[in-house]
Amino acid sequence: ALAAPAIAQSNPKVTWRIASSFPKSLDTIYGGAEVFSKMLSEATDGNFQVQVFAAGEIVPGLQAADAAANGTVEGCHTVAYYYVGKDPTWALGAAVPFALNARGMNAWHYHGGGIALFNEFLAKQGLYGLPGGNTGVQMGGWFRKEINTVADLQGLKMRIGGFAGQVLSKLGVVPQQIAGGDIYPALEKGTIDAAEWVGPYDDEKLGFQKVAPYYYYPGFWEGGPTVHLMFNKAKYEELSPAYKSLVHTAAQAADANMLQKYDYLNPTAIKNLVANGAQLRPFSQEILSASFDAANEVYADVEGKNPDFKKIWESIKAFRKDYYVNMQIAEYNYDTFMMIQQRGSKL
Amino acid sequence: ALAAPAIAQSNPKVTWRIASSFPKSLDTIYGGAEVFSKMLSEATDGNFQVQVFAAGEIVPGLQAADAAANGTVEGCHTVAYYYVGKDPTWALGAAVPFALNARGMNAWHYHGGGIALFNEFLAKQGLYGLPGGNTGVQMGGWFRKEINTVADLQGLKMRIGGFAGQVLSKLGVVPQQIAGGDIYPALEKGTIDAAEWVGPYDDEKLGFQKVAPYYYYPGFWEGGPTVHLMFNKAKYEELSPAYKSLVHTAAQAADANMLQKYDYLNPTAIKNLVANGAQLRPFSQEILSASFDAANEVYADVEGKNPDFKKIWESIKAFRKDYYVNMQIAEYNYDTFMMIQQRGSKL
Repeated sequence: ALAAPAIAQSNPKVTWRIASSFPKSLDTIYGGAEVFSKMLSEATDGNFQVQVFAAGEIVPGLQAADAAANGTVEGCHTVAYYYVGKDPTWALGAAVPFALNARGMNAWHYHGGGIALFNEFLAKQGLYGLPGGNTGVQMGGWFRKEINTVADLQGLKMRIGGFAGQVLSKLGVVPQQIAGGDIYPALEKGTIDAAEWVGPYDDEKLGFQKVAPYYYYPGFWEGGPTVHLMFNKAKYEELSPAYKSLVHTAAQAADANMLQKYDYLNPTAIKNLVANGAQLRPFSQEILSASFDAANEVYADVEGKNPDFKKIWESIKAFRKDYYVNMQIAEYNYDTFMMIQQRGSKL
Repeated sequence: ALAAPAIAQSNPKVTWRIASSFPKSLDTIYGGAEVFSKMLSEATDGNFQVQVFAAGEIVPGLQAADAAANGTVEGCHTVAYYYVGKDPTWALGAAVPFALNARGMNAWHYHGGGIALFNEFLAKQGLYGLPGGNTGVQMGGWFRKEINTVADLQGLKMRIGGFAGQVLSKLGVVPQQIAGGDIYPALEKGTIDAAEWVGPYDDEKLGFQKVAPYYYYPGFWEGGPTVHLMFNKAKYEELSPAYKSLVHTAAQAADANMLQKYDYLNPTAIKNLVANGAQLRPFSQEILSASFDAANEVYADVEGKNPDFKKIWESIKAFRKDYYVNMQIAEYNYDTFMMIQQRGSKL
């Protein structure tokens, strides 16, 4: 028999499945995994195929990381804070109240050791993760009534989860867990008083302004939430060095692309929302300050009990302190001047 | 003879040279092309090789795009506004005074049709371009004396070029063209009164605070300057579809990576600069407003004469108007609250 010719097959066939935590209707966030998949396929002449499954197609959206960890699928596209029930450390890879904005989070992930630190933690779960999207600062959500003081939060039933729910519950909010499709009727009937979702572009599709018109900002619990691509660690390690590098490159590009798309789509959406009855309201300084203090109490408590959490949170905090020094100089003053021009109808 | 086996060579050998407009000492901005090159090489098992040459190694930095257009090299890593002498339209791919910040510029490039629009223009120059980095809002530069009013700008000799120089000359500034290495002695001797460079990380290396301690912000002429990867159009079109796609993916990743790196490095640099004598000063509202008006006069003048400029600038302006509506809601209020905490030593 003839020996096989010694030509390296530089793009081996790999077929992966990725479980998304998102429905296809959230086209920008769900679409982030599709963008990643297209980049891999195109760069390898179709040899590295990643098929993306919407939430519920293989596993429910909130079990996407479990499915990747146990090998049901090779990877997932999810938000790490969905898994705080297992360990609060998960949230630090994505967002916790009053952490960094999107640019800060990315600076920390890519250059401040964040990717490596969070992977030390994910490795224990059998996963390898990379940032794979960001929404920017989210909105604070939809409220049936105006809230001005901390007293107004007493007994307020709000659809909000994770760390944010824990922080707000210290101020009297009663956090509710409700699936996306059930929020509208719950707000309409008054079963709940408020609900947070994402930001203008995604919120516009759901029409909450008709039943809870007060649209508060900022969503201080999500200053720059990182959406993650997480892979089964063993499956990731089986990849060739070239494919591993390509996965990193495509993830970094897809990560950037999601925020770029939101930044392009949100301006039109916020105008439409306001035209259709949304009443924009800033959270008062009293509410923000009380929430900031409550968040710090929660962090101090968790740090005392959880060394993984402490290690990563201390790293984020150290960077956050200096990051917001620098951002208040050229960036903030440039934006402020441009916003004044916008308000003066000069743009 | 045996027929060659029918195995597609999916990663053909390609060797390109890229002329950078930057010296290696500007490691973050120069390094952007190295990051891009590494991504291509790794993903193709070393088959797609891009060698990066610093400014002056093949051609002077300000001739990098010419070298790519005429085929001396296959590509360049440059800032499009360096070529405003040929046509002011060049500047719109990078930055003009009072345009978008980095996130806005990227939203416009990737989702607002900016890449396609700018490539209509670049095609006439024999080039194909993609965003390949961003510095964020730059600083306004180093001044020997404080400037508070427009009157203080009269006769001020400032190292500044392009559109910014044109705008400031309307207010009495005398723009000077001086190569990077010559700025320090010119400031020291008083041959010039002021000089703009980049931002904290790059400025720190040059020690300008010793001879011109007033460090003004923001650099309103560079709210979010895009650094470009530009390729000889014919050479780009010879690439396989897989390589073209990989070039896009790697450029988008390298583009994001540069801003992420600056955002990580600038905070430490600004602290060092202040510790070493830099005096931070905001430009007064009078100077900013007069500059904004002067910029609009320049744009109206150029738009009347240059249809290419008009087409692209109208696209940027239309997006800018809505972008700064949205950014003043969740993003601005989140950042403001965090900056107040920073000033109160609560971070």
